[in-house]
Amino acid sequence: MATDENAPPSRALTDKGRMEAFSDGVMGFAITLLVIDIALRPPGSPLHQFVQAWPSYLAYLVSFFTIGTVWIAHNGLTDGLERVDPIFLRLNLLFLLTIAFLPFPTRLVVEALGRGTGWERLAAIVYGVTLLVTRLLFSAMGAYARRMGLRAAGGDDPDLQEARKKFRYVVIAYVGTILLGLALPSVAIFFYLAIAVYLFVPFGLVARDLFGRGGSPR
Amino acid sequence: MATDENAPPSRALTDKGRMEAFSDGVMGFAITLLVIDIALRPPGSPLHQFVQAWPSYLAYLVSFFTIGTVWIAHNGLTDGLERVDPIFLRLNLLFLLTIAFLPFPTRLVVEALGRGTGWERLAAIVYGVTLLVTRLLFSAMGAYARRMGLRAAGGDDPDLQEARKKFRYVVIAYVGTILLGLALPSVAIFFYLAIAVYLFVPFGLVARDLFGRGGSPR
Amino acid sequence: MATDENAPPSRALTDKGRMEAFSDGVMGFAITLLVIDIALRPPGSPLHQFVQAWPSYLAYLVSFFTIGTVWIAHNGLTDGLERVDPIFLRLNLLFLLTIAFLPFPTRLVVEALGRGTGWERLAAIVYGVTLLVTRLLFSAMGAYARRMGLRAAGGDDPDLQEARKKFRYVVIAYVGTILLGLALPSVAIFFYLAIAVYLFVPFGLVARDLFGRGGSPR
Amino acid sequence: MATDENAPPSRALTDKGRMEAFSDGVMGFAITLLVIDIALRPPGSPLHQFVQAWPSYLAYLVSFFTIGTVWIAHNGLTDGLERVDPIFLRLNLLFLLTIAFLPFPTRLVVEALGRGTGWERLAAIVYGVTLLVTRLLFSAMGAYARRMGLRAAGGDDPDLQEARKKFRYVVIAYVGTILLGLALPSVAIFFYLAIAVYLFVPFGLVARDLFGRGGSPR
Repeated sequence: MATDENAPPSRALTDKGRMEAFSDGVMGFAITLLVIDIALRPPGSPLHQFVQAWPSYLAYLVSFFTIGTVWIAHNGLTDGLERVDPIFLRLNLLFLLTIAFLPFPTRLVVEALGRGTGWERLAAIVYGVTLLVTRLLFSAMGAYARRMGLRAAGGDDPDLQEARKKFRYVVIAYVGTILLGLALPSVAIFFYLAIAVYLFVPFGLVARDLFGRGGSPR
Repeated sequence: MATDENAPPSRALTDKGRMEAFSDGVMGFAITLLVIDIALRPPGSPLHQFVQAWPSYLAYLVSFFTIGTVWIAHNGLTDGLERVDPIFLRLNLLFLLTIAFLPFPTRLVVEALGRGTGWERLAAIVYGVTLLVTRLLFSAMGAYARRMGLRAAGGDDPDLQEARKKFRYVVIAYVGTILLGLALPSVAIFFYLAIAVYLFVPFGLVARDLFGRGGSPR
Repeated sequence: MATDENAPPSRALTDKGRMEAFSDGVMGFAITLLVIDIALRPPGSPLHQFVQAWPSYLAYLVSFFTIGTVWIAHNGLTDGLERVDPIFLRLNLLFLLTIAFLPFPTRLVVEALGRGTGWERLAAIVYGVTLLVTRLLFSAMGAYARRMGLRAAGGDDPDLQEARKKFRYVVIAYVGTILLGLALPSVAIFFYLAIAVYLFVPFGLVARDLFGRGGSPR
Repeated sequence: MATDENAPPSRALTDKGRMEAFSDGVMGFAITLLVIDIALRPPGSPLHQFVQAWPSYLAYLVSFFTIGTVWIAHNGLTDGLERVDPIFLRLNLLFLLTIAFLPFPTRLVVEALGRGTGWERLAAIVYGVTLLVTRLLFSAMGAYARRMGLRAAGGDDPDLQEARKKFRYVVIAYVGTILLGLALPSVAIFFYLAIAVYLFVPFGLVARDLFGRGGSPR
């Protein structure tokens, strides 16, 4: 919260603390709101209804991992920033707009699964497009920060490196899955889960942990 | 969170950290709550219902940009404050009261669009008055901070300057749109979107970026 | 977030930063959740339904001002603390339990007004008891902090002084209004609003501002 | 928020501030969302419906104390950390996934109580498994932090010590109560409350307060 003593006289750059806090708030609420749409599916015995509600759990997991991974990457991005400027704040808001929107396509998926191919197709596509736009906006934030020299000195956060390395594959995977959703929508939902899990597991870091870093940091 | 060593002995002024955190919480939650009211509109095919739900998307966008821009301006305002006093805390609460209220008029708009002119007129006016009061209270906070010398030394945040420059036009635009809402309520909703987008785009800064600042901060 | 270099070796005391953040989160959500229960009241013309919903607005205002004032006092209390201990953290949780519960009695009030005296009486009493318990727990937190020496050196925050001065009157007023609620429940609701406004307006500070401090802080 | 001057060159470790803020957001929201499911139970007189809603209050209390105690322990854990690494961030996300999920089993309990043994058994087991998994993930976070040397020098936070001491008993109690839930589900719910209260009351610290520390910290 304290301002640097060598702050630029133009004040075109501002402190990043509140942008992080607001982003944490929006992402934290969006990720928690997802639980509201989990509900049992009558008719049937208690256990039957509980099991029949699997689309709710699936959608909860996909969206939770998606927002969670995006949060980790966002953390890595802002961790490496020295300050932010008004354009970056607005890019961040657009990015949050898609995050806060995600509970709606999630609900579409929950309601569509098992209700017929037409509903599943709509849900799979809207869901995928939202995920894709979220990724693209996040990537735009990173590119803008690099171009405008907003980053602090030193190497990038490992989570940000991981996110950047995976970015190309993820965009291709989302576009592919959206197209797949036209033909086999319920399969596409499982692909979104696979992508979310792929994003969540830090393969590079796990490997480094297992083979190289284990005991070094005390 | 740390208190200045040269804090005034009267302690009439307090740290601004928690006011920012609480405001971020309320604004972040209000902006995320908006998604709850997005819903498909039966009857019809999946795609038809999805398209018919356009008033939900429109209202979501308007309210998101409105709260988002207000948050940016609030960030700019508190960024320039050294401390806050009890009166400022209460002005801020009144301001948050209107922000937290916004999901209700937003819902009114969603439910009204396409339901008849009577509903649309009510929604357009309640929505506009809420937006107007939010702006007026925000402006009162800025005026109070200036009058009581709560601001830190140095120029204002560029977002705050932008907000102040636009303030007069925005108030006129809101009043005009509220009056327009009496006659053409559904048109008024689109005007609110136009105002929100106008507030969101930092015209002055974009121009400066394009012509002057581009490579300097490196 | 940084720990003092002269931290006590026993570590029985911990940093207050996260307790403030968590409390801000819970109070911020609770205050924003209140809007969910605002709804129009069919049947009738749009304007008629809007006006008929006045119990929603009333309950929103009372609860918003109540939580808002409690937040201001909480801010004043923790502002004056140096550190917190495990017992204080738990007192704070009990206090947050009543804050997070408040949307339920608020909903009771909204649904009860105009539905008959039996409903109004129940709502007025449950509401009043919740408000009273919130105040008592807050007062217990302050008393514990004083008794255990958790406070930093220096005088108290003006908002905390204000809250403490008003405390006795507020408890009496709540008890009186709860009793009044047995006989005239709908009148009691307006009394709760009056108490909330009384708590919100910093009479002492306003007087000081008008007569003494006006121009001094530059 | 400020980075240490002696940050490791590998940057494999990152600042913990945002992880705490995000966790506070998710836990604060989850704990506040619980109130949404509290509702009166028609038919009957106002007071009768209010009393009949006791399962709502019970589930609210159990879940509030459970999340509250987990938050206190989480606070104690991160308070003792110097930094976090990407794996820890992901463990924390998995932990938050179960916390954000808790409102669903809570709702199951509310709806099940009094609706027949089949529903109560399902609710008691799903609830208990969620609580157990939350505890196990929390314990995994602590174990990982110890193994990787993420902790700061100095003894552990008293709340974390308390949580660790109670851990074995709590796991046994949860497993036992889940098994009990197969036979006597409605009794199991009260056991969950007893466990939550056991976790909430800091027996060791209360004893220390009463007999040893009372006046020393002044």
